[in-house]
Amino acid sequence: MFKVTPWEVSGKIDYQKLIEEFGVSKITEELLQKLPDHFMLRRGIFFAHRDLDKIIKARENGEKFYLYTGRGPSGKIHIGHLLPWAFNLFLQKEWGTELYFQLTDDEKFLFNEGLSLEDTKKLAYDNALDIIALGFDPKKTTIFLDTENMNVLYPVAIKVAKRVTFSTAKAVFGFDSSTNIGSIFYTSIQSAPAFLLSELEKRSIMCLIPCAIDQDPHFRITRDVAEPLGYPKPASIYCKLLPSLAGSDKMSSSSPESSVFTTDDEETVRRKVMNAFTGGAPTVKEQRLQGGNPDICSVYAYHFFCFEPDDDRVKGIYDRCRNGSLMCGECKTMLVDEINSFLLKHRKKREWAKEHIDDFVKRI
Amino acid sequence: MFKVTPWEVSGKIDYQKLIEEFGVSKITEELLQKLPDHFMLRRGIFFAHRDLDKIIKARENGEKFYLYTGRGPSGKIHIGHLLPWAFNLFLQKEWGTELYFQLTDDEKFLFNEGLSLEDTKKLAYDNALDIIALGFDPKKTTIFLDTENMNVLYPVAIKVAKRVTFSTAKAVFGFDSSTNIGSIFYTSIQSAPAFLLSELEKRSIMCLIPCAIDQDPHFRITRDVAEPLGYPKPASIYCKLLPSLAGSDKMSSSSPESSVFTTDDEETVRRKVMNAFTGGAPTVKEQRLQGGNPDICSVYAYHFFCFEPDDDRVKGIYDRCRNGSLMCGECKTMLVDEINSFLLKHRKKREWAKEHIDDFVKRI
Repeated sequence: MFKVTPWEVSGKIDYQKLIEEFGVSKITEELLQKLPDHFMLRRGIFFAHRDLDKIIKARENGEKFYLYTGRGPSGKIHIGHLLPWAFNLFLQKEWGTELYFQLTDDEKFLFNEGLSLEDTKKLAYDNALDIIALGFDPKKTTIFLDTENMNVLYPVAIKVAKRVTFSTAKAVFGFDSSTNIGSIFYTSIQSAPAFLLSELEKRSIMCLIPCAIDQDPHFRITRDVAEPLGYPKPASIYCKLLPSLAGSDKMSSSSPESSVFTTDDEETVRRKVMNAFTGGAPTVKEQRLQGGNPDICSVYAYHFFCFEPDDDRVKGIYDRCRNGSLMCGECKTMLVDEINSFLLKHRKKREWAKEHIDDFVKRI
Repeated sequence: MFKVTPWEVSGKIDYQKLIEEFGVSKITEELLQKLPDHFMLRRGIFFAHRDLDKIIKARENGEKFYLYTGRGPSGKIHIGHLLPWAFNLFLQKEWGTELYFQLTDDEKFLFNEGLSLEDTKKLAYDNALDIIALGFDPKKTTIFLDTENMNVLYPVAIKVAKRVTFSTAKAVFGFDSSTNIGSIFYTSIQSAPAFLLSELEKRSIMCLIPCAIDQDPHFRITRDVAEPLGYPKPASIYCKLLPSLAGSDKMSSSSPESSVFTTDDEETVRRKVMNAFTGGAPTVKEQRLQGGNPDICSVYAYHFFCFEPDDDRVKGIYDRCRNGSLMCGECKTMLVDEINSFLLKHRKKREWAKEHIDDFVKRI
């Protein structure tokens, strides 16, 4: 049993089943050949899509398109959040594509009893530092807060909303009578940026949404209403969710020990990784004899999803774990060093971002 | 059987019953003594309120408050629309009060299948001319379109929305599963201006909403959420709906012969009034003998609600109708002359408004 919605991910996710349930397409070998090379594609971390082939064709024909992704600012940023953003950065660099990055301060206010709008707005500006720190091109990147751009977003959002009934929202998101009317409306706001450039430039401009698979329900609705509204359907490319250090299927900001935050200091990172759930055998002796199980190991997942882009080396970790020559302690120490080396640089760039935030966070 | 909702008014309205159903208060004699004198108050055209006594007290104590009213731009303006606006104008002049006038282009788009957002926006600017023509003080009046002011309205609206469930919206407005999610959310947008000055000035500022009684359901919700959000509850003062020339209970833009539009020429006005439903007897002879019935007469209603502010004269019309000395033809001719004399001036001021629209229609 697993559950994947934009607001709740739990259980051991069967991604093959999710492909069928959501009705998305698997990224085929043929499609891979037409995409720039990235370990997240080679390894099937980005694994599913809608209409990605149309984006590739548009690119081949020299047609304009743009990237759109987002973040719901409900807390601090952890490594799992960076995954799809790093892929957006890669596409921006490879293709020179413009990126619209939505910070949904309204969403996180509406869906979280404990957060005020002031809280989520403050978090949005804080989270923006982590986005900027990754190295996006300020000339090609617009990071925007929903509540600061409603003059532009709302007129598009209500065109979407007029075509979505409560029945549909209920079926797609599992709402009921006790859901607040802001949450019911919210999906329209997440649809709007997918039509933004078409709206602003008064011509049909395609959009590619690289994000985690849990956001697909929103974009299913977006795609359903697109053509009746005279906009092109947005394409999307979806990644898996980075497993938690506790072994479940998504890092969660609500259990801080199972996630590594970008603001964690070296000792905190060490403690969290050292306490992580692994696929190791009960004793060192047994592990030397039988090997470990990287397929269920959260430490291996971190190497595989994020910190070891070299395929040979990640295979080395896998094989040495399996054959009992790599012990959990050594493997964890490698990961601690990789994470800390990354975060050392990230935190510096995050400080730099504080001085340059106005070059990125803009009014549309 | 009658029905009064913000989107549908039908049947012969029993206002006493409505007071009980909506849970509003009747304007008492005691309260009347504390209000400036106006025929709409004396005659019970403005007949009900919520917390009007608090506004009177605030005024006595020199505390700041403001007026808020609105218009849903779904078509042309008829005489019935002008009724509450004229009363807002009266209060602005008497009290020197600031007025926020909301044009809900989003609402009329969301609730009307046949209207595009471009249509309702265009209608909003057209309708604004009729508002301006009445003579509001540009220094004290802000007419604003919803879709042009969402950066300010939306953050307040979602604070409201977070506290209103689908159940509540369903119970208050009669929504069902087939209602679109924009319509479900919309009431939050109509709540926002009631909290606007409190929000902008970061202190508690009361608001009085003079409008027709059919809008009360929105403000019931507004009042329910006010205090938990730290805003004062808005007060309201409600008028009855001008009966249609066809004899039913509200003028309707959808049956043009039963309403007099501000843009109707003299001949059109004459035709509409001459064809109006009256309380006259079947023949002149019978009417001379038995008299007419002004209580059910739409022509008398026009004299009473709008065009004969002199109480003695309106009583004269009533009595002469009852005793059979005033025939319908004469009474209608009087009304045609009054309406045309008013519209002649109104249309001139409406032309003037075209040159001065920017002094009134503003961004908040």
